[in-house]
Amino acid sequence: MTKQELFENIKRKKSFLCVGLDTDIKKIPSFLLDEEEDPIYAFNTAIIDATAKYCVAYKPNSAFYESHGIEGYKALQKTIEYIRIKYPDQFIILDAKRGDIGNTSEMYAVSAFEDMKANAITVAPYMGEDSVKPFLKYPKKWIILLALTSNKGSLDFQLIEDKNGERLFEKVLKKSQEWATDEQMMYVVGATQGEMFAEIRKYAPNHFLLVPGVGAQGGSLAEVVKYGMNSQCGLLVNSSRAIIYADNTVDFAYTAASEAKKLQEEMAVYLEKLI
Amino acid sequence: MTKQELFENIKRKKSFLCVGLDTDIKKIPSFLLDEEEDPIYAFNTAIIDATAKYCVAYKPNSAFYESHGIEGYKALQKTIEYIRIKYPDQFIILDAKRGDIGNTSEMYAVSAFEDMKANAITVAPYMGEDSVKPFLKYPKKWIILLALTSNKGSLDFQLIEDKNGERLFEKVLKKSQEWATDEQMMYVVGATQGEMFAEIRKYAPNHFLLVPGVGAQGGSLAEVVKYGMNSQCGLLVNSSRAIIYADNTVDFAYTAASEAKKLQEEMAVYLEKLI
Repeated sequence: MTKQELFENIKRKKSFLCVGLDTDIKKIPSFLLDEEEDPIYAFNTAIIDATAKYCVAYKPNSAFYESHGIEGYKALQKTIEYIRIKYPDQFIILDAKRGDIGNTSEMYAVSAFEDMKANAITVAPYMGEDSVKPFLKYPKKWIILLALTSNKGSLDFQLIEDKNGERLFEKVLKKSQEWATDEQMMYVVGATQGEMFAEIRKYAPNHFLLVPGVGAQGGSLAEVVKYGMNSQCGLLVNSSRAIIYADNTVDFAYTAASEAKKLQEEMAVYLEKLI
Repeated sequence: MTKQELFENIKRKKSFLCVGLDTDIKKIPSFLLDEEEDPIYAFNTAIIDATAKYCVAYKPNSAFYESHGIEGYKALQKTIEYIRIKYPDQFIILDAKRGDIGNTSEMYAVSAFEDMKANAITVAPYMGEDSVKPFLKYPKKWIILLALTSNKGSLDFQLIEDKNGERLFEKVLKKSQEWATDEQMMYVVGATQGEMFAEIRKYAPNHFLLVPGVGAQGGSLAEVVKYGMNSQCGLLVNSSRAIIYADNTVDFAYTAASEAKKLQEEMAVYLEKLI
């Protein structure tokens, strides 16, 4: 998917919502465990069918599937395939935080883009250029590089300042733009970072930002929009737990849909000035 | 495995060699593709049987398996199980460079330590404390944190200096020691870094270092030992391509064994002063 296509989807659906599929077998409605052969996949497809009209992206979190071994891995593949075939306008982000030396990142790229057929993968920047570049060989596929994350540990290294007062996340933003344009690269910026979005936009005015941390992690959508939105929206705001675990009765998918709808309606208002 | 047990294995086997299982179906002997139902697993088990007496650790590189989807994932699981059962004194490192917010790193830990049953996992530090700590809940299991890697991209961020001249990798070494001791944490330091090992030892005198980059990437074992060895050896030197792809005829396992043996014999000399 190109940047323009993503923006068209955002305008058409009046939403920049990404639904995070952090599917944890301990948190899904227990009746699914009794009734379904593959409860993770059954949960995901119900959530996807219920929320697809309110969002433009899905973000399965690889860790949750890997924790179930082969069965989890299969559920991840099937989930991505389900979205791809039934909802081809959805932008699928494999949230995997990969990154290694060149010949190894090449293999992660094969996994994400050829095997899984995701549109994008999240990548960690610590190992630098040759750990990132192999993902860029795929036209219309995206990397989403960690810049300033939503967690408490983001304070440990990401804010370290050099002699000129430039912080690590700023260096990541600047350096990485030597490797790819905003047509193939996005950044992860946590919703918990509030006014820092204005700082991010100094370095990356045109990039899309993937924004986790709204909802369960406490980030504010209004703040993210205020400081982070650009003329092509430039935001994919992710919500996982607040949508998919809103309810664990038989009505879980219905409740997930209404939580997604609430966010979409709020987003529609913010998008009015762009559309 | 405890640090003491690992050191005992090193002394007994006169080796601190780790064999990297970066198994690429395009590089393994072609007759395996014709003859074997699972050529990756067949290759790995032959390599393992041939090299086990010369090494103390194996490091399957998750990316290579993930690139083959479900079949690759199964081959990875079976390979780890094969080592665990047949060679229980081998230290098994799942080289996966994981790391995410706390609830997600918890899932990666389940995958590495409960599902795969590896002894250790490599972890990327960018997201800080809460991305690392969930891996530390498992007694006798290890995290191996990226500090100063072997690739060209290590120059992009890892050497950034703060106002006091302290570099990012030094901050990672210092900060991470607030989270775990040298009984549960090692660091990745690339063999290509030569004299930098002396710098690393200022901050981590007692830690084991996992050292990739000897062989194909050009690092020197003599330099690594000169600047990096401590009184409990403190080194696991990895070689992947130079051992496992030394030969692609029917003699591949035999040749891999002799390459491993060469390294082991060199290591035995370096270990003499410790044993």
